[in-house]
Amino acid sequence: MAKRPKLDELDLSLGKRTRMHRLLYEHGPGSGRLLLLPIDQGMEHGPIDFFPNPPSGDPDYQCRLASEGGYSGIVFHIGLAQKYMRDYVGTVPLILKLNGKTNVPSDAEAFSAVESTVEDAVRLGADAVGYTLYVGSPAQDRDFIQLGKVREDCDRYGMPLIVWSYPRGSAVEAKGGRNSIYAVDYAARLANELGADIVKLNVPKFGDPRNEDSPAPYGKLYREWKELDEDEAYRMAVEKVVASAGRTMVLFSGGSKISDEDLLRKARICIEAGATGLIFGRNMWQRPFEEGLRITEEVKEILLSS
Amino acid sequence: MAKRPKLDELDLSLGKRTRMHRLLYEHGPGSGRLLLLPIDQGMEHGPIDFFPNPPSGDPDYQCRLASEGGYSGIVFHIGLAQKYMRDYVGTVPLILKLNGKTNVPSDAEAFSAVESTVEDAVRLGADAVGYTLYVGSPAQDRDFIQLGKVREDCDRYGMPLIVWSYPRGSAVEAKGGRNSIYAVDYAARLANELGADIVKLNVPKFGDPRNEDSPAPYGKLYREWKELDEDEAYRMAVEKVVASAGRTMVLFSGGSKISDEDLLRKARICIEAGATGLIFGRNMWQRPFEEGLRITEEVKEILLSS
Amino acid sequence: MAKRPKLDELDLSLGKRTRMHRLLYEHGPGSGRLLLLPIDQGMEHGPIDFFPNPPSGDPDYQCRLASEGGYSGIVFHIGLAQKYMRDYVGTVPLILKLNGKTNVPSDAEAFSAVESTVEDAVRLGADAVGYTLYVGSPAQDRDFIQLGKVREDCDRYGMPLIVWSYPRGSAVEAKGGRNSIYAVDYAARLANELGADIVKLNVPKFGDPRNEDSPAPYGKLYREWKELDEDEAYRMAVEKVVASAGRTMVLFSGGSKISDEDLLRKARICIEAGATGLIFGRNMWQRPFEEGLRITEEVKEILLSS
Amino acid sequence: MAKRPKLDELDLSLGKRTRMHRLLYEHGPGSGRLLLLPIDQGMEHGPIDFFPNPPSGDPDYQCRLASEGGYSGIVFHIGLAQKYMRDYVGTVPLILKLNGKTNVPSDAEAFSAVESTVEDAVRLGADAVGYTLYVGSPAQDRDFIQLGKVREDCDRYGMPLIVWSYPRGSAVEAKGGRNSIYAVDYAARLANELGADIVKLNVPKFGDPRNEDSPAPYGKLYREWKELDEDEAYRMAVEKVVASAGRTMVLFSGGSKISDEDLLRKARICIEAGATGLIFGRNMWQRPFEEGLRITEEVKEILLSS
Amino acid sequence: MAKRPKLDELDLSLGKRTRMHRLLYEHGPGSGRLLLLPIDQGMEHGPIDFFPNPPSGDPDYQCRLASEGGYSGIVFHIGLAQKYMRDYVGTVPLILKLNGKTNVPSDAEAFSAVESTVEDAVRLGADAVGYTLYVGSPAQDRDFIQLGKVREDCDRYGMPLIVWSYPRGSAVEAKGGRNSIYAVDYAARLANELGADIVKLNVPKFGDPRNEDSPAPYGKLYREWKELDEDEAYRMAVEKVVASAGRTMVLFSGGSKISDEDLLRKARICIEAGATGLIFGRNMWQRPFEEGLRITEEVKEILLSS
Repeated sequence: MAKRPKLDELDLSLGKRTRMHRLLYEHGPGSGRLLLLPIDQGMEHGPIDFFPNPPSGDPDYQCRLASEGGYSGIVFHIGLAQKYMRDYVGTVPLILKLNGKTNVPSDAEAFSAVESTVEDAVRLGADAVGYTLYVGSPAQDRDFIQLGKVREDCDRYGMPLIVWSYPRGSAVEAKGGRNSIYAVDYAARLANELGADIVKLNVPKFGDPRNEDSPAPYGKLYREWKELDEDEAYRMAVEKVVASAGRTMVLFSGGSKISDEDLLRKARICIEAGATGLIFGRNMWQRPFEEGLRITEEVKEILLSS
Repeated sequence: MAKRPKLDELDLSLGKRTRMHRLLYEHGPGSGRLLLLPIDQGMEHGPIDFFPNPPSGDPDYQCRLASEGGYSGIVFHIGLAQKYMRDYVGTVPLILKLNGKTNVPSDAEAFSAVESTVEDAVRLGADAVGYTLYVGSPAQDRDFIQLGKVREDCDRYGMPLIVWSYPRGSAVEAKGGRNSIYAVDYAARLANELGADIVKLNVPKFGDPRNEDSPAPYGKLYREWKELDEDEAYRMAVEKVVASAGRTMVLFSGGSKISDEDLLRKARICIEAGATGLIFGRNMWQRPFEEGLRITEEVKEILLSS
Repeated sequence: MAKRPKLDELDLSLGKRTRMHRLLYEHGPGSGRLLLLPIDQGMEHGPIDFFPNPPSGDPDYQCRLASEGGYSGIVFHIGLAQKYMRDYVGTVPLILKLNGKTNVPSDAEAFSAVESTVEDAVRLGADAVGYTLYVGSPAQDRDFIQLGKVREDCDRYGMPLIVWSYPRGSAVEAKGGRNSIYAVDYAARLANELGADIVKLNVPKFGDPRNEDSPAPYGKLYREWKELDEDEAYRMAVEKVVASAGRTMVLFSGGSKISDEDLLRKARICIEAGATGLIFGRNMWQRPFEEGLRITEEVKEILLSS
Repeated sequence: MAKRPKLDELDLSLGKRTRMHRLLYEHGPGSGRLLLLPIDQGMEHGPIDFFPNPPSGDPDYQCRLASEGGYSGIVFHIGLAQKYMRDYVGTVPLILKLNGKTNVPSDAEAFSAVESTVEDAVRLGADAVGYTLYVGSPAQDRDFIQLGKVREDCDRYGMPLIVWSYPRGSAVEAKGGRNSIYAVDYAARLANELGADIVKLNVPKFGDPRNEDSPAPYGKLYREWKELDEDEAYRMAVEKVVASAGRTMVLFSGGSKISDEDLLRKARICIEAGATGLIFGRNMWQRPFEEGLRITEEVKEILLSS
Repeated sequence: MAKRPKLDELDLSLGKRTRMHRLLYEHGPGSGRLLLLPIDQGMEHGPIDFFPNPPSGDPDYQCRLASEGGYSGIVFHIGLAQKYMRDYVGTVPLILKLNGKTNVPSDAEAFSAVESTVEDAVRLGADAVGYTLYVGSPAQDRDFIQLGKVREDCDRYGMPLIVWSYPRGSAVEAKGGRNSIYAVDYAARLANELGADIVKLNVPKFGDPRNEDSPAPYGKLYREWKELDEDEAYRMAVEKVVASAGRTMVLFSGGSKISDEDLLRKARICIEAGATGLIFGRNMWQRPFEEGLRITEEVKEILLSS
């Protein structure tokens, strides 16, 4: 099994250590595991994601869920952070997402533009910042430069840096697709190389015929794992990318909404296979509030169990 | 009905609160509602908009109208602000529009470039700044970065930020068009996410066959609302986007000149459905001065009535 | 007739007022009218413009003409300003042109790049700066940003800003051409909006069949004015664009060399119709020196006569 | 034979001299020769390079190898430097690689974007920085500007600058390819011109039919050297490019893994022909740890022997 | 004959005057004429230019030639300046070339990127900086902006600015080619306009059939001069462009190696026709050292003779 990084073993500045301690031990499961509630979908997808559960269109809904459910942190862009967090100070840490985009134009040359700063995060009392890196995009040069400056500011202010490391763009699609093991594995390593403290990954998917277009020897890996039962293959994939993330803690996302059974099984595998935490959005707030609290509890139990 | 944000309930800095208080309670209707007079059409469309009422080509005309009509604020670019406001100090607040473009070249990659600064606004005694965001444009990366810096300066100086949130660009046209509910709804949310204090929206339109190209489930919404009578559908659309704007106050524009009856009916619906105010330009100054004052009074009555 | 702005009625800072006073009342006609001698053609067109009168290729020629002819100012780029002005200090004010380009490559995406600064102008004792704005160019976003910074520096240092407001680029050509009333009218308004103190315009031309491609209602205007005698139409066009320039003083250019009769008739119409001044280059220095002085005198008489 | 630059003969600032002394005489072979262990492949190629020896996917593996093997320095990007070096302080100098890219998108317009700074290197106690220059890329203008700023910072802080000088991009491929003598020779000279202290080169390759597309007189050189035995041709090529690097010390890379016999023969020729050192990555860590130590020793013997 | 600018008659700052005095009167011919030795070909063309005389590949060769031959200055990029000048301090002034490019990719949109600064030049004790401007390139906007900043720094530090004014790019080739009189004449004027103290030009060439594509009236000029004998036409061309350079001193280049007879004849014509100096590279160092010294002496005699 891939080694899960421990806060005490990492060589972090005092500021980063203090803030990550809050996320890992003073909120959420409190056991060194993370459960984050992201609410950046309104920017990335528009209000479309709130149709299944209209009350979730009010960001206060997610604040309440994060607070009552006891999450390790809530992820907001600057506008929502400034307008909705006041009443939840002390109950749930803020993670300020610094860059974003809409999904309206083509993402062939995907690039997520910074619209707030690490200084904003400091000013708002945030405990981490988030940054989306589009791994393999033709616009990677601008992305590296932009991330480099954010990383530098994080080092200056002792602010933990969470990188949403997303394979994206036309070249990625030509080499197996954004969810291929090849792509996610690269994304995991890249976050470690570029100075992330925590990396958010999507769990690789199997069965996409384009996987065969990934560079060798990934093809071999697909063929081997296809023989395994689904959960085992899933576990192998998680272990592989957690290992590639090295001393960067790994969060896995839930993606679009799936059945509770699937969600919990996947959560368990991720945590057992080395993930430090989960970042579940639509799976938590695209349902009635009480149901959201219930599934939150079930996920937290999994986080506490390994 | 969508909840209308109240100044006292918003978590604003002292500077923003002071300036927004001026706009909401010390000028215009004075009841917490806004009526703004924009005169940026000379930049955005050229002098062509002044043909129906030639005296309106002199910016002093709009100054007089805003002053005598008792508007909450007048919207100028830097050149007009510096040249025409001196005699109207104290009678109508200045809102400095920071970016603009002409409509001469294609807007397939629409981008509105900053040509004045928040510091200019401070120096000129303005009570807010305006910024046009082209939601969904292929140039959105530059737009986010540019808006991010304006937003940061607004936070630094306590200057309210009004975002003209306009769906625009080739990708928007391919997904239902700039006036589709999908597009305007996204624009409303995006302004809330990016830190606007007030957002200016166009009321969505019905009946464009391209609406069917909007991502599901918006299509369903179109089909349902098509069954309603026109005013009711209009109200539903306004409520939807006001809700998506969340704690960002919403202004609706009048667009090109329509009949008084239509204008007043639309104004009433907007305000009843949660808008904080109206920003009416051509409908006010593309007519003789006295007529402009008269219709201003009628609109203000509507603003005071709900 | 369009109202001509008067220095005393404009709301200018002390620095701008002082420097504009020099241009308007202490040099040139001295009556509040302007006569500028531009010598930026060596950059914009190359030495080709000096073939009709070879001595004019030496910038000292224009210095002498401006000095002996008693112009309100001479327009130079930084290199010529630094190398040729020393002997003419006190006799003719310097206007530093800040941006330029050659006419070698295509101007489909016309953009004039800044190569000196307002600080340079201050350092050299200039009384104004010049900036070329390409109205309607696909590169307008960069142009607005660049002009915005120049404008800001002008406000900081009290330096008058003269905008060469030129319709240009592929989109302009598709909507009636750079000399259409539509285009020049837009250019006049835009300079006023963007903070010019003075705007240099070309007088619109008639008879280009592309004029019909201008947006309505300009077509109607063309058709009406075509019925007028030529001078009257010319006057109408000048009045229209002077009105659109509002509180920005208007200079008209002479363009390429024409007959003296035409030049003087056009000058007279421009001034009578509201222009504050003229900026005549090739028409003045593409002829023997004494002839240049003579025509200068005749133009100044016109300037003094209305 | 090409003259190998000696530290004492170079005109270096005290800071650069001090740090280069550490690399050349206080670590590694210690005789003025360099043996560097690069581990930037995880960024440039992804985890794919670790498949032949999975433990090498943990950067601590390379740290141990560099430390126990006694390398002159280890090359890391910022993320790995911050997370893995703590336990190896004093045993192996850090070389911070400042720019990078993934190999996912096309490299027709290759550009390697800076994501950390010379100040980061100073802060982390590094003894040199690395920068990848893509010689001949259509993006060379951005590359020169970016490298110029890094070089300036290196001069400011006394930090040695190692340039990875790689011919790359569509134009290079059309003129003989990235491994042609023409291309590598140009790369060597360019690093000397642009201010590198040390340049990393790939040894030119023979036999690519595209070599004939190199500009004359390189074709003649290919034809002459083709007559020589392979080792002799190799030596001639190394001498040529070492000479072109002038007073810039040359490191040769190993490239992808080859047989030990080939590796050692090539290493010997490089050093005998004027190289100052070797930078071997995959050839060292794409094998079991003890084997890696053994081959390290053999390479160091070669470095000490000439 | 075109007037040759004299140092005493130019309006230069003390710093520029001091440094230009060193170049004009304290080194080289010492009579107010310049003879510069450029060695930037290793960057612009690669080591290919050293094949005819391999020792010239070592920059020390040019240092010795410049020192023993008594040149007015040697032109280096930053890397060579820092590495090779120490032993020649006091014997030959340094001219730091600030921008450059390789000739590998297409120069259809030619742009030469800055990789060192005027501050570097000050720090290294240089007496001038060099900058390559690509006149007429589609990238001229970036070039003007970049040159403008260099020019500003030169004014700040009193550092003479030598502009390599080269017509280049696809538009130039369509209008007569880079060596047409039209193009070189424009280049001469542009350097004067943009603030060069000294301009380096190539002597225009005749007989290229594309010359007819130059804008009128250059065609007439070609046809007239074609009737003259070769030397006379050459002299006319030189006088024309020297006149267009105005108060900017002109250097002519030698270009690729030609016969001694041709070289000396061309040198004599240039100087007699108003050039201030010559910048000969390949013609001086693409031959054995003693021959290089001899031809240097012969060229200097020409420089001293007029």
